[in-house]
Amino acid sequence: MKIKVVFHVNCDDEKTLLIALNNMENLLKNVPADEAAVNLVANGTAVRLFQRERAAQYASRIEGLSGEAVQFSVCNNSLNSLGIKPEDLLESCQVVPAGILEIIRLQAEGCAYVKP
Amino acid sequence: MKIKVVFHVNCDDEKTLLIALNNMENLLKNVPADEAAVNLVANGTAVRLFQRERAAQYASRIEGLSGEAVQFSVCNNSLNSLGIKPEDLLESCQVVPAGILEIIRLQAEGCAYVKP
Amino acid sequence: MKIKVVFHVNCDDEKTLLIALNNMENLLKNVPADEAAVNLVANGTAVRLFQRERAAQYASRIEGLSGEAVQFSVCNNSLNSLGIKPEDLLESCQVVPAGILEIIRLQAEGCAYVKP
Repeated sequence: MKIKVVFHVNCDDEKTLLIALNNMENLLKNVPADEAAVNLVANGTAVRLFQRERAAQYASRIEGLSGEAVQFSVCNNSLNSLGIKPEDLLESCQVVPAGILEIIRLQAEGCAYVKP
Repeated sequence: MKIKVVFHVNCDDEKTLLIALNNMENLLKNVPADEAAVNLVANGTAVRLFQRERAAQYASRIEGLSGEAVQFSVCNNSLNSLGIKPEDLLESCQVVPAGILEIIRLQAEGCAYVKP
Repeated sequence: MKIKVVFHVNCDDEKTLLIALNNMENLLKNVPADEAAVNLVANGTAVRLFQRERAAQYASRIEGLSGEAVQFSVCNNSLNSLGIKPEDLLESCQVVPAGILEIIRLQAEGCAYVKP
């Protein structure tokens, strides 16, 4: 079985993001990266957590996971409403038009949902 | 692909409900209403948020979404245990016998799950 | 339809666990136990809630549910990182190597996900 999952983070709460990073790091210790499709989608105020300036403490963990099959997606609707520019985000992040739609799409493709 | 989703709200926390309303409004800007099956299920203390007296600030948003393919369902088990009468709820809401069972049923029918 | 669900508890917050226990007890009033496959997976700091010493107030409810088709699973990664021994847990709990992996596996097998 291929391991497919989307983690959903929607609040500007660093503690929750760190739980998600722990979860994903543990997961990838248990599953070979090529058998895993791991996604994290951030929307709402959680998009702030991925601003380069803000993320200094955990940026290297995000980069490490990004190098191991994890796709980080940040909601463009949320960026717009908070006045954050895509170029202020960590390079490992892709911007998606609508975070909720991405979460729905991923589940429709067989990803499990986890809310840390 | 038809967009199918259930939003789950289970706490008497207006902020969380407003996030769900935002999510659904954004979603319906991105997807034509006839290609979407959007549900919100409220159980636990969240059922209080749908009392007519309580909902004045956001009732018109719920009515608007209800007119656009969104089904709002409120758990009857929770209404009973909190002593709330179905007739005190916003008219846009349907009462379902058991909120959790509705959430399980919707996912079994292919809805994605989102916890705002 | 067989009712299949996984409840996910990941914080050391008794209130959230009690909501999950209520949800599961209500569910099993509405569905015959032999038509239900109900799971609760605890990871992160939530594993503390299943320590025998800690759980005195609600241990009998967990035992009762465990006798009625509910499977309680506790994450071994989390036990290790918090220095908790499996033998300190309630007897109704099984220890699984990785809680998140169990949640993904259960969803892949058709369980709905509920985050109380």
